[in-house]
Amino acid sequence: MAARAEATNVQALIFDVFGTVVDWRTSLINDFTAWSATRGLSGDWTGLVDAWRQAYVPSMDEVRKNPARGFIKLDDLHRRSLEQLAPQFGLKNLSDGDLNYITTGWHRLKPWPDVISGLTRLKSKFIISPLSNGNVGLLTRMAKNAGLPWDLILGGDVFGHYKPDPETYLGAARLLNLQPEQVMMVAAHNNDLAAAQKLGLKTAFIPRPTEYGPLQKLDFEATGDWTIVAKDLNGVAEALGC
Amino acid sequence: MAARAEATNVQALIFDVFGTVVDWRTSLINDFTAWSATRGLSGDWTGLVDAWRQAYVPSMDEVRKNPARGFIKLDDLHRRSLEQLAPQFGLKNLSDGDLNYITTGWHRLKPWPDVISGLTRLKSKFIISPLSNGNVGLLTRMAKNAGLPWDLILGGDVFGHYKPDPETYLGAARLLNLQPEQVMMVAAHNNDLAAAQKLGLKTAFIPRPTEYGPLQKLDFEATGDWTIVAKDLNGVAEALGC
Repeated sequence: MAARAEATNVQALIFDVFGTVVDWRTSLINDFTAWSATRGLSGDWTGLVDAWRQAYVPSMDEVRKNPARGFIKLDDLHRRSLEQLAPQFGLKNLSDGDLNYITTGWHRLKPWPDVISGLTRLKSKFIISPLSNGNVGLLTRMAKNAGLPWDLILGGDVFGHYKPDPETYLGAARLLNLQPEQVMMVAAHNNDLAAAQKLGLKTAFIPRPTEYGPLQKLDFEATGDWTIVAKDLNGVAEALGC
Repeated sequence: MAARAEATNVQALIFDVFGTVVDWRTSLINDFTAWSATRGLSGDWTGLVDAWRQAYVPSMDEVRKNPARGFIKLDDLHRRSLEQLAPQFGLKNLSDGDLNYITTGWHRLKPWPDVISGLTRLKSKFIISPLSNGNVGLLTRMAKNAGLPWDLILGGDVFGHYKPDPETYLGAARLLNLQPEQVMMVAAHNNDLAAAQKLGLKTAFIPRPTEYGPLQKLDFEATGDWTIVAKDLNGVAEALGC
């Protein structure tokens, strides 16, 4: 599928990360299952991971509703949610080292199979960056662990805001010396693209229908009028002539 | 030369860019000389480049002294200084396109000969990032043009401050989830390292004795008690066991 003519002035692509670039659910379950066998721990890792991700949006909403408390980076939100949830899934008496290992599981997520080749193609023609609610420290270590070839790293803590706050999308354009219409948001989530489109950014949707496993309810397909709809990142590269 | 034992907990290296990583003076003079021949322009490019760089620190001081006016990114400071200085060097009636081309000369700077190999070695063991007064848009394009293999890009506009303001050094450590003593500042400028050291960062000095051409007055050698002193970035890599 070719991109519409309106994509021709795009100079930078910014990417949602959790779900769009990396398969957080499978990565975390596999990581913790293998690690806990060596540690003599047992627990319901699938249940924990699913509940942990369900705590994600509410935990960012808390930050958004209490600006006077200051911005709290995602690593810290993850740690707090983990401490609250772990006992419900058979994981009691975790040491500080255990909690740190589990929290930094988000630094060790694996990309979907098309990601390295797709990003490498896109990087040849465009500036490529995450625009993620992950913090810079998390995203930097993820990129080094997984070999993600970003040109730069933009996370929620750069802006002191979480998506879909406008400060994130517009802040990315500003830091890149670009107008919003010269930036394309790439995501597997229609709501992320809707927020970006409303502010004038271009949009690209790719489906990740197994992101949430059996719990997936949304985003099986494009539900908006996006600039590009493709099957994966190689499809986006193709549409943009890379 | 081996690094001192105190360097063993370092996880990230942050680099001064103008002068330390790229040879701004030779790059700009060569770029403008070649370009102006094709444009039928003539002027004293060497004089302009030297005067332009002399306006650099005062222009950042103006921003620092007037916080109520808001942060102004380096690309914009460069443009303002250029417009003021150009007529003094035989460059009159420059078009907006000419002024833009000259201003973005800072996006096309060339690295010193040891930089790509040195950074590539250091990247294998450490997080590597610029910590520059350049803005993110400038530094990102410079990295793509020159092939600088940064893991991420940190510029003055991320922090809303210019070095040597503490917000830059401490902000870099914070974004990287590190304590100041886990971060090493690498620079060819003793004053940059002094500011970093005062805040608890580790330091590495490399000399760039031709940075300012015949105008160079400072920084022929290390004048502080730095963690590492090496001849170039490959020397830093060697000292850190990369």
